[in-house]
Amino acid sequence: MTPNRLEAFSDGVFAIAITLLVLDLHVPPPGSGELGHELLARWPSYAAYVISFLTIGIIWINHHAAFSRLREVDHSILIWNLLLLLTVGVLPFTTSLMAEYLKESSGEGLAAAVYAGSFLLMGGVFVGANRQILLKRPQLLKQPIPPEIARQILRYAALGQIPYVLASALAVVSPYVTLAICACTAIYYSLPVASRGAGHSDANIA
Amino acid sequence: MTPNRLEAFSDGVFAIAITLLVLDLHVPPPGSGELGHELLARWPSYAAYVISFLTIGIIWINHHAAFSRLREVDHSILIWNLLLLLTVGVLPFTTSLMAEYLKESSGEGLAAAVYAGSFLLMGGVFVGANRQILLKRPQLLKQPIPPEIARQILRYAALGQIPYVLASALAVVSPYVTLAICACTAIYYSLPVASRGAGHSDANIA
Amino acid sequence: MTPNRLEAFSDGVFAIAITLLVLDLHVPPPGSGELGHELLARWPSYAAYVISFLTIGIIWINHHAAFSRLREVDHSILIWNLLLLLTVGVLPFTTSLMAEYLKESSGEGLAAAVYAGSFLLMGGVFVGANRQILLKRPQLLKQPIPPEIARQILRYAALGQIPYVLASALAVVSPYVTLAICACTAIYYSLPVASRGAGHSDANIA
Amino acid sequence: MTPNRLEAFSDGVFAIAITLLVLDLHVPPPGSGELGHELLARWPSYAAYVISFLTIGIIWINHHAAFSRLREVDHSILIWNLLLLLTVGVLPFTTSLMAEYLKESSGEGLAAAVYAGSFLLMGGVFVGANRQILLKRPQLLKQPIPPEIARQILRYAALGQIPYVLASALAVVSPYVTLAICACTAIYYSLPVASRGAGHSDANIA
Repeated sequence: MTPNRLEAFSDGVFAIAITLLVLDLHVPPPGSGELGHELLARWPSYAAYVISFLTIGIIWINHHAAFSRLREVDHSILIWNLLLLLTVGVLPFTTSLMAEYLKESSGEGLAAAVYAGSFLLMGGVFVGANRQILLKRPQLLKQPIPPEIARQILRYAALGQIPYVLASALAVVSPYVTLAICACTAIYYSLPVASRGAGHSDANIA
Repeated sequence: MTPNRLEAFSDGVFAIAITLLVLDLHVPPPGSGELGHELLARWPSYAAYVISFLTIGIIWINHHAAFSRLREVDHSILIWNLLLLLTVGVLPFTTSLMAEYLKESSGEGLAAAVYAGSFLLMGGVFVGANRQILLKRPQLLKQPIPPEIARQILRYAALGQIPYVLASALAVVSPYVTLAICACTAIYYSLPVASRGAGHSDANIA
Repeated sequence: MTPNRLEAFSDGVFAIAITLLVLDLHVPPPGSGELGHELLARWPSYAAYVISFLTIGIIWINHHAAFSRLREVDHSILIWNLLLLLTVGVLPFTTSLMAEYLKESSGEGLAAAVYAGSFLLMGGVFVGANRQILLKRPQLLKQPIPPEIARQILRYAALGQIPYVLASALAVVSPYVTLAICACTAIYYSLPVASRGAGHSDANIA
Repeated sequence: MTPNRLEAFSDGVFAIAITLLVLDLHVPPPGSGELGHELLARWPSYAAYVISFLTIGIIWINHHAAFSRLREVDHSILIWNLLLLLTVGVLPFTTSLMAEYLKESSGEGLAAAVYAGSFLLMGGVFVGANRQILLKRPQLLKQPIPPEIARQILRYAALGQIPYVLASALAVVSPYVTLAICACTAIYYSLPVASRGAGHSDANIA
């Protein structure tokens, strides 16, 4: 199989997961209070929407960078890609969980840990998929990549998970800390490449 | 990255956002009253559906015109595009808000302002993305565009936001005024190009 | 604009509208009665799902046949296509309306008329889009089509709407008659072309 | 029609059906109990999500293998494909049914039988579509396939349905048995091809 159809299918899943996030934004029922107040009270939903939207968008960019190196895909890469999409597809759920519980006084830490944990899972599977591509199936690459460069790309990708490890762990302190780390990470990867050191763009993952 | 995959992903988000609008059309529960009456009472939902559908459709046309000028995309353009999609993805929510509150006696002005404001935000980000393409990354264009032409395209795109500024501001008068302005704008851009002056087609944004 | 991106976007809308139909299939809440009985009682949802799925699928096939004749698209064709997608996007709503009201003793005729009417509207817009392509923009076709052939294609397409006119009108008799006509029409166009006279395949619309 | 647009449309339906599965994952309403407990209690939803996700992903891989053999598609293949997509589109519903009833003391067997039955239906239609491609329309293939090879491919595909026959039948014993068989089947087809005998990859269907 050529990577084209894999990319088309993956683009579809990314696009749908990113757009389904809007289903977590709920219109306050008329009569439930002053609309301005009600809308503002739902700010965790908007924050979670923006953070998850950017994070999925950035993983999509990285997905493209990783899979466009391939001339051909085999069964193992298809399955790795499927596992990656599985973790992407679950994000509207964990985003909703985060938004619903952020302001609660019970369960808010666990919800935040699950939220950051779902990004970490996605990132971990992405590292695994990338490893399969770069180290296990070099014969499928368009151009050979020297093993030391491949390992460096993987190292960067793995390092890119550190914020999510922190965000998951610090959920016990406060879910706001978790949300702030996830937000900063998304913003960081949205910044111009030059401002974070050139050449890392496709080695990182939000 | 070539613009092809960016376009495929963007097409997916546009197509999903436009189709998710239907989820705001609710079937009256059986037994809630005479069906014909119940269906007619929900006309704000249908109006908001048609206006938002056409508006997203027209921004999709403009998106194509803007991004098809590119030979290649860089990180900055990917992120501008992602921000644009973020504002498109939110429209099913603001459309639903408008439809729910149009006939209410409280919150209707704010809902209308948010509705027109979400179109304005989308339009503003489109102008920004277009500016990035035309002025900041001329080296990525398929064919060079003289700066004065580029500025004229941007001026038209910016002028195209005036109806949404008006629609947002006049929400304090009546949400019906807001809805009417948004409807007229969508219809205007749906009309044959000839009837609004040739050559502006891709410089405008609904 | 080449027809490729128009087709990609349209494919997206068709695919989403057809897949959103599943959201009208509701799982009976546990404890609401014997599951087998509850599932069987919801047969109108399954019937409406299958009929709408096939009907959207067939219009998608016809859409492809009609738009693949084009070498290029202009603004008028983009807008006709957008109007067609607007009528496709609304079908999950009218399908749900039909399914909810079929077994009711009030409103069932109107629901059925709206259901068949939404197919008729889609068919009518398809005829309009086809007319724009074949008669108004012959210069955009890949290969010239003699006007008499073009008119014949349009005549067949228009004749293909007769079942929906009947189905809408006969909703006053019984919604089951409407459903049966829509079902037969979908099945008819799913049959091998040979069994309904060769050469009509892309002149008809479900 | 070339297979390209058929594949693009099918990819869309597969991608949407697979991503809509997330809508069955419900956030426990705040205040309904300890969040950790509530989340764990919903494990059938997560299990059903993962199993259905992998199963749809694998049928997508097989779909590609089967349809990429075609140089061209005719009406009969379009309709077979549409029927296949119809059975794919219904899976979010049967997945939700399985998840809701797994732990119930009434209806759980039927729900499980419907779940496995929906995979069996999808598999059966896939075998039918494959048969149409390989035996009935050999003139549309890119490269001729000897009838004995074609029959062997179909035999493998049919044998691949045996787990679902078992899973449906054994629902009377316990829905957990059904779920376990479906899980094992999905995992089996996700394993490296080598570990299950080379050359079967596209003759099987999850």
